[in-house]
Amino acid sequence: MSLSTATSKTYPAKQHLVRTAKNLGVSSGVIFVRGSDKILHPDSDTEYEFHQDSNFYYLSGVVEPGYAAAYDIATDTAILFVSHVSSDEAVWIGVPPSLDKQRAAYGFDQAHFTKDICSVIAALSPSKIFMLPHHQAQELETLPIDQEKLIEAVHEARVFKDDFELEVMRRANRISGSAHETLMREAQLGMNEAELRGRFVGLVLSQGCNYEAYVSIVARGRNAAILHYIKNNMALDSAENIVLVDAGGSLQCYVSDITRTWPLGAQFSPECRAIYAIVLEMQKTVIEACAPNKQWMDMHLLANRVAAQRLIELGILKGSLDDIMEKHVVGFFMPHGIGHLIGIDTHDVGGYPRGTERVNVPGLRYLRANREMLPRMVFTVEPGLYFVDVILADAKNDPAIAMHIDFDIVAKYRYVGGVRIEDSIVITETGYENLTTCVKEIADIEAIRAKASQNREI
Amino acid sequence: MSLSTATSKTYPAKQHLVRTAKNLGVSSGVIFVRGSDKILHPDSDTEYEFHQDSNFYYLSGVVEPGYAAAYDIATDTAILFVSHVSSDEAVWIGVPPSLDKQRAAYGFDQAHFTKDICSVIAALSPSKIFMLPHHQAQELETLPIDQEKLIEAVHEARVFKDDFELEVMRRANRISGSAHETLMREAQLGMNEAELRGRFVGLVLSQGCNYEAYVSIVARGRNAAILHYIKNNMALDSAENIVLVDAGGSLQCYVSDITRTWPLGAQFSPECRAIYAIVLEMQKTVIEACAPNKQWMDMHLLANRVAAQRLIELGILKGSLDDIMEKHVVGFFMPHGIGHLIGIDTHDVGGYPRGTERVNVPGLRYLRANREMLPRMVFTVEPGLYFVDVILADAKNDPAIAMHIDFDIVAKYRYVGGVRIEDSIVITETGYENLTTCVKEIADIEAIRAKASQNREI
Repeated sequence: MSLSTATSKTYPAKQHLVRTAKNLGVSSGVIFVRGSDKILHPDSDTEYEFHQDSNFYYLSGVVEPGYAAAYDIATDTAILFVSHVSSDEAVWIGVPPSLDKQRAAYGFDQAHFTKDICSVIAALSPSKIFMLPHHQAQELETLPIDQEKLIEAVHEARVFKDDFELEVMRRANRISGSAHETLMREAQLGMNEAELRGRFVGLVLSQGCNYEAYVSIVARGRNAAILHYIKNNMALDSAENIVLVDAGGSLQCYVSDITRTWPLGAQFSPECRAIYAIVLEMQKTVIEACAPNKQWMDMHLLANRVAAQRLIELGILKGSLDDIMEKHVVGFFMPHGIGHLIGIDTHDVGGYPRGTERVNVPGLRYLRANREMLPRMVFTVEPGLYFVDVILADAKNDPAIAMHIDFDIVAKYRYVGGVRIEDSIVITETGYENLTTCVKEIADIEAIRAKASQNREI
Repeated sequence: MSLSTATSKTYPAKQHLVRTAKNLGVSSGVIFVRGSDKILHPDSDTEYEFHQDSNFYYLSGVVEPGYAAAYDIATDTAILFVSHVSSDEAVWIGVPPSLDKQRAAYGFDQAHFTKDICSVIAALSPSKIFMLPHHQAQELETLPIDQEKLIEAVHEARVFKDDFELEVMRRANRISGSAHETLMREAQLGMNEAELRGRFVGLVLSQGCNYEAYVSIVARGRNAAILHYIKNNMALDSAENIVLVDAGGSLQCYVSDITRTWPLGAQFSPECRAIYAIVLEMQKTVIEACAPNKQWMDMHLLANRVAAQRLIELGILKGSLDDIMEKHVVGFFMPHGIGHLIGIDTHDVGGYPRGTERVNVPGLRYLRANREMLPRMVFTVEPGLYFVDVILADAKNDPAIAMHIDFDIVAKYRYVGGVRIEDSIVITETGYENLTTCVKEIADIEAIRAKASQNREI
């Protein structure tokens, strides 16, 4: 059994080529895309772990370096260009399958070696060759190349996930969600953040993921107030603390991106529980609201409104809800967007389609998508609340904001650091499906942590 | 407790600058080196996991992106250039320590921000600025830059490890060797190669390693005949098979590189045991021979001679030992060098100092070092024997070689795939020290595997 074929069916590369061609809105011409090559560390023969160009993977399904692909729109012909392996190289990387076996395995109509790219493409007498702006066009430069139109066509195709892609994403989420639950069960006081990160990576790779989707964040206590904390080297030294784990595995080049926050002791401390409960309510409110034809930015504002209400009740915020919303005060506690498109890339393409711009106000400026939600889009929903010193200092210096914040009460919550809860949601015809299967209710988490604490005492 | 400070003492960056300046053989001028910047996946905001430029790490001890360093030779002044973090960035990556705290932590004499590189360097009125050929010199281009001499001076410094470096390498080897032993204990028939790779990566990251030093090779049976097999996705499905695991963790930027080969069943099969015994004898013979003032290439030939003798006894080779040695017939079974320098890079710098060339004959052409062994050099000793179809086909087609090989007997051993055993050896004043602590004797391995098989049966 080979893990890479565990989901078995051929990657729908040709369908992705067809869909991309449709987005181009032309009836002839050739799409031509290149895969990534290996990258070496500077002055070294050590390779960076290979990552395929995301657009190329989408249009080919190939995870090997040095390949290329073309699609002749008028004749509906998908052409794979295979990197030739010399017998010297075969000693190191093995003998590859024949051209025709590779053609069939990847679901293409033709296969040639990459040395023949120019002649094969030229023989199609294309009216236009559509390429991506970051791919080099050198050997084709005598032909009519367009490096502008293709990117939007591919990006828009990637925004809408087909059944194959959704099933891979479900599996990536199951594997990664299960690894998150293992951390919750196994974490003990006295461990180091690095141990949890190592355990997570080990679990997802063992289950067939090819990569850690991004460098995991394992942040205990105050470290959770650093949004992109990847040092992961501090001791888990206080039962009062929570630990925030933002980690996901990449399966067949589709990533998962899951955040869970849970107590190191048997229970949440009162302050941690209060903040956690608000974030969980923000998340569940947004998820329940996810449906076709709604605006993503409204989901962000909805989460902000829940937070504003609850932070007023907690005494952290003061003044009228409308004033607080108008001044984006919650943005000083949640300095990131409510979520982003996700797929082959963690922050997937297509968040700002042509004609939409970022909104430069606190909390909104980091929003990674601003568009109408439609079926087959997959978004993360990841509200968070954080006590970030540099942001709170800014707030204190701005009277219009400071008047809405009780800094004495903030001081009592500062040790919480931050809380984030993140799932991936696919928009369906009627609403949504949550791809992320991992406990997040307070009672479930505390049951797991209480058991972990007992194990420690035994 | 922070894992990154577990070996505590400041990295001896300044000593490395001094040693490098000494190798330059000049009494004035400025050494100037840059650290790596982040690299993004194409058309994506996903970062490659950050790897520091090895030469820069050696001369600075800095693992963060965007730094630089200088050393004014005449005044013995080490200058650190620190990447400025804006308060917007601080929300994402945290507030860095002050300039002076960073200066002290890294053991430098001065610290400035990188925006001041040009003015600080110009103020030294350097007669020459020594830079590495792959570092961009743009902002200094009005100054007298030499991008040729420095690289050899740094490389030669890196070849000789000081006590600090050796202690880090001992720890990297202990962590990684222990992880290898865990795999031997836990591997069961029915698992997948990916599970072992995941377990290894999880273990070394959990123990404080920052990276998998290179993509691990976990190759069962015939996959071990692919030297750089990194697919790692096949089932461990036969007790007759051995599994070859070539994997190491990188600790504080120093790598370990360990290979162990062991049976999936309770014992080696007769053919696997025969090949393993030869490779182990090759390795132990070479290690015992390691001592100052000997030539590395002689170690390679020594391993070949042991192999030739034993392969004749096994009936795989035939004819006179001298003929077999002269024709490099063993190179058809060990198509790589006996080992390489190791340090910050897996295949570390300095293997071919000025004036030495590669020798283009089978088995020798892949030798990664050709120089006199001297105290404080660290080499891997990694003999292997493999049954690689494309190489054996070449041998069969060459009558001068084919006359020395009994292909009927080779066919009986083909399923073995390959065996490699790899340790890291530091040359001492009187001989060597083996940095790699991990079982490799047949009796020890079989005791572990017999217990693993019993666990399965329970």
